[in-house]
Amino acid sequence: MHTILKSGSKEVVIGIDKPFVIIGEKINPTGMKKLGQALVDGNMEYVIQLAKRQVAWGADVLDVNVGHPQIEEVEIMPIVVEAVKSAVDVPLCIDSNDPKILEAGLKVAPGKPLINSVNGEEKQLASVLPLVKERGAAVLGLTIGEDGIPATAEDRLKVAGHIIERAAKMGIPIEDVIIDPLVMTVGHNSMAATVTLKAIELIRKEYGVNMSLGASNVSFGLPDRHSVNSAFLSLAIQAGVTCSITDPIKLGSSIRATDLLLGKDANSMRYLKYFRATEKLREAEAAAK
Amino acid sequence: MHTILKSGSKEVVIGIDKPFVIIGEKINPTGMKKLGQALVDGNMEYVIQLAKRQVAWGADVLDVNVGHPQIEEVEIMPIVVEAVKSAVDVPLCIDSNDPKILEAGLKVAPGKPLINSVNGEEKQLASVLPLVKERGAAVLGLTIGEDGIPATAEDRLKVAGHIIERAAKMGIPIEDVIIDPLVMTVGHNSMAATVTLKAIELIRKEYGVNMSLGASNVSFGLPDRHSVNSAFLSLAIQAGVTCSITDPIKLGSSIRATDLLLGKDANSMRYLKYFRATEKLREAEAAAK
Repeated sequence: MHTILKSGSKEVVIGIDKPFVIIGEKINPTGMKKLGQALVDGNMEYVIQLAKRQVAWGADVLDVNVGHPQIEEVEIMPIVVEAVKSAVDVPLCIDSNDPKILEAGLKVAPGKPLINSVNGEEKQLASVLPLVKERGAAVLGLTIGEDGIPATAEDRLKVAGHIIERAAKMGIPIEDVIIDPLVMTVGHNSMAATVTLKAIELIRKEYGVNMSLGASNVSFGLPDRHSVNSAFLSLAIQAGVTCSITDPIKLGSSIRATDLLLGKDANSMRYLKYFRATEKLREAEAAAK
Repeated sequence: MHTILKSGSKEVVIGIDKPFVIIGEKINPTGMKKLGQALVDGNMEYVIQLAKRQVAWGADVLDVNVGHPQIEEVEIMPIVVEAVKSAVDVPLCIDSNDPKILEAGLKVAPGKPLINSVNGEEKQLASVLPLVKERGAAVLGLTIGEDGIPATAEDRLKVAGHIIERAAKMGIPIEDVIIDPLVMTVGHNSMAATVTLKAIELIRKEYGVNMSLGASNVSFGLPDRHSVNSAFLSLAIQAGVTCSITDPIKLGSSIRATDLLLGKDANSMRYLKYFRATEKLREAEAAAK
């Protein structure tokens, strides 16, 4: 099953038979003071820099989130989307909990964007799915039900099914729903990752849809988070996850290595290309400092 | 299924429900000039240093190989085994292609050692399995048949089955056979790792035996080998590999992270302990330099 996202002139295809798709996470002011300030000041230069840097480091799609207490998000979202669109030619992932902010971003987003996100709560489904349908977008569906994140893989499968069915009833094709089976931190619960890996397998078997994961939550509170995050991404890709909203600079090499190992990179072409490009970037960024 | 190895006073249990077992690879002069010279000189100080360092960094078992063109291996092997035995209390893995050298090491190895290795060739089976039986050791069985390493997972399964059956006929219990399904370099053949991962799954399903992999061959000839090796180990552990002859200093953190993610580390105890111990070691080793 292929989910196709589009920028102004490019297509990105997400699928189990395709290289893993990296959705750059950095245009999000949560915990990023410098970006928060740039957004408050309406200064798009830093946003553009983040956009270009992520694409240079291998991001296929860029997430755009402008959530910040001092920002009128519904006004700033389209300005940021326009800025990013002017700088890079990749599909965008419009990221907000608020349908009005999503709508403001979707209006100016190029091609076919991804909407981040809906979940299994009726209120969310009723307010976000019409936007997906109307815009002809794809949507990320988080396996959160009316009672929160289910503890078991089987119950996450149920929520995924509910989102897919509700989307289908509105005429949104199943390939335009990407499920995020969610992962909690393994530092609090030793079974947090295994539940998610099992949910991935169940959802893949039952629906065959594309799946995404934010990989960094799993290591919250632990030391050497990179070892945990990169190992988890490898395990999740093997289980069936096909894209991730993540940091291409930190996790790009693990992702390209995992694609190579899973037979999705003939003659190591992408792996070698990634290595050569990022080697030069690393040198250039070190020199600039 | 549990494979139990023993040192003078300790037991190491290898099993799918146990933390991954690290067999330290560093006492092997192949490509290690300094160790080669120390062995030629009969200087055991450096050997002891390598043994202690690997155990400090989390090795559960130590491989001992003395293959070197200038060394009378059958004489040096027992000297090295004695030296290692005097320095650390872990089970040993006696490593040679030559049954006479294996025998020389096995005589002085403590407890219940692992023999590295036999393969599916009749000549090897006939010469090594009697040593395994006589010594009450465990043995590593490489999936190499009369015609070399089979190209398909199914044929590697057949070789594994042949080794297990021949061992059983000699009275060696199946739990004392650890299969190495072998991995070729993915830089030469994009499907090299997927064949091995499939072989792991087939062997696990059919026999449920413990499996080991040397993880570094997979990345031969590629840049940033660490990303490939660590991702491959994570994938192999998920597929069913339960131990590896590897470098605990380079790959320990990925292995402990993967155990944690696969639910084999209650309350992150081993992960945190590993991090704290190696953080101190890293500082001490940097200071010593």
